[in-house]
Amino acid sequence: MKIGVIGGGSIGLLISAYLSDGHEVTIYVRRQEQKQVINEYGIRLAHQREPLSVSALLTEELAKEDCLFICVKQFQVANITPLFNKHQSPIIFLQNGMGHVDLLRDIQAQVFLGIVEHGARKINDHTVAHTGKGGIRVASYNGDRSLLEMMVSKWDRPDFPIELEDDWLSMLGKKLVVNAVINPLTALFGVPNGDIITNPYISTIALELCREAADVLGLDFSEQWNHVKEIASNTKENMSSMWKDIEEGRQTENEAISGYLLHHANHDIPFTQFAYNSIKALRLKKELMD
Amino acid sequence: MKIGVIGGGSIGLLISAYLSDGHEVTIYVRRQEQKQVINEYGIRLAHQREPLSVSALLTEELAKEDCLFICVKQFQVANITPLFNKHQSPIIFLQNGMGHVDLLRDIQAQVFLGIVEHGARKINDHTVAHTGKGGIRVASYNGDRSLLEMMVSKWDRPDFPIELEDDWLSMLGKKLVVNAVINPLTALFGVPNGDIITNPYISTIALELCREAADVLGLDFSEQWNHVKEIASNTKENMSSMWKDIEEGRQTENEAISGYLLHHANHDIPFTQFAYNSIKALRLKKELMD
Repeated sequence: MKIGVIGGGSIGLLISAYLSDGHEVTIYVRRQEQKQVINEYGIRLAHQREPLSVSALLTEELAKEDCLFICVKQFQVANITPLFNKHQSPIIFLQNGMGHVDLLRDIQAQVFLGIVEHGARKINDHTVAHTGKGGIRVASYNGDRSLLEMMVSKWDRPDFPIELEDDWLSMLGKKLVVNAVINPLTALFGVPNGDIITNPYISTIALELCREAADVLGLDFSEQWNHVKEIASNTKENMSSMWKDIEEGRQTENEAISGYLLHHANHDIPFTQFAYNSIKALRLKKELMD
Repeated sequence: MKIGVIGGGSIGLLISAYLSDGHEVTIYVRRQEQKQVINEYGIRLAHQREPLSVSALLTEELAKEDCLFICVKQFQVANITPLFNKHQSPIIFLQNGMGHVDLLRDIQAQVFLGIVEHGARKINDHTVAHTGKGGIRVASYNGDRSLLEMMVSKWDRPDFPIELEDDWLSMLGKKLVVNAVINPLTALFGVPNGDIITNPYISTIALELCREAADVLGLDFSEQWNHVKEIASNTKENMSSMWKDIEEGRQTENEAISGYLLHHANHDIPFTQFAYNSIKALRLKKELMD
């Protein structure tokens, strides 16, 4: 397949690298520099010697592809949706949170949603470390399920599994709960994911955040809490994306995660409110320091 | 007057230094080393050249004094209460929080309570910096008010004011609210006191903590919130005692402050619960790192 990957961050590089084996992959990036370096050197997985051949173009040069993976941050989705009506290839959105779902209604192409359970760290513009082996789950939003099934069968491979899910809402909800618990607390306390379960005081707060998130999304609390603990344990050494964003002074996904819950709650969710304001407080502190 | 000051921390050193001008002050300390250095060199205020002459003894050597100032941390009060029945001098307790009040019933001496609004930083065992000019407020707990009035008139001086208050409960309550808001948030975010009002996201959380604390103590919210903002503004450059305790890996007054509120609340106070667990989480993180 001709696959387009939009976004040259850690997830965009990771997907491009794995799918380049067997597909013709073009990665669409924002900066001329990154386009050049990928076209010259390919994309390298940090544990492998040989770079993988991937073409790069700027986002505004979007060409006709058989499908598009959208790997930009949630808060950048609004900037690129106008591009999608040009070719109307099937699109797979891989954002955290659920804030982007409200933007998908106006897209004429077939839309699919996915979540990424891999750990990845961008080393430089064309190198990515695959720090946590996980998988990708996808479900249809308004697209043809048999088309998705066909595509998944072509993408799926043992070292980079892609699985089909039935219900996009519960799939994204489950991921949102995990993010609403692990992301703000690891950033606030400056700890790796495992501390969510090993530090009993962080765990006490985590449980309350999980209860609030499950409640807002209409999901079963104890099922979600077990899932949060499982993810925290499986990724115990990892630095969450929000912690990295705070450390590096970048915009976080706070609005798409805790902000989404606050916006959709019909009663007070004080732990989430505390966590949401904490991330904003840390961002402002960092901004004023830099 | 013969004045005994129990506790060789920043507040004990500060009070001993100021009251030594006009009174015969003995400071009671835990360590032989500190006793020796004070007996040899006196106590020095960091902004003054000349040391002040203060005697030092170990706490267990407690002699007859005209009155005793108790300047140990709230969580150390229980260790020293047995000493007080030896001489039965009037005692002034100067702890943060309200946890120690439950321990005072069994003391046979006259008991007074006070709060310290000075900023002070211990430089070494016999030197203290007076970092914020404030005052001390005292009220009777079960003691003779006219005795307290007489003593205050002897202690009070323009550069170290001591004021009489009518109601110990509202005096301590007011201070407890300030501590329950400023202490955990400055420690959690690693910011000076002024950020409580200048960082709008910390301010949002601060307001909720203030509301919960005022509510538990039966105090008027907007009065307390104005007081919190005033103190944060007056001490805007200061590093709170709890932030210092966390940084230096020492036990905090979390139990006496947020813990007291959680113990005395008759409904959920989630912001306080989040803050209380945050301080415990940071303490544990620090312990495991050291």
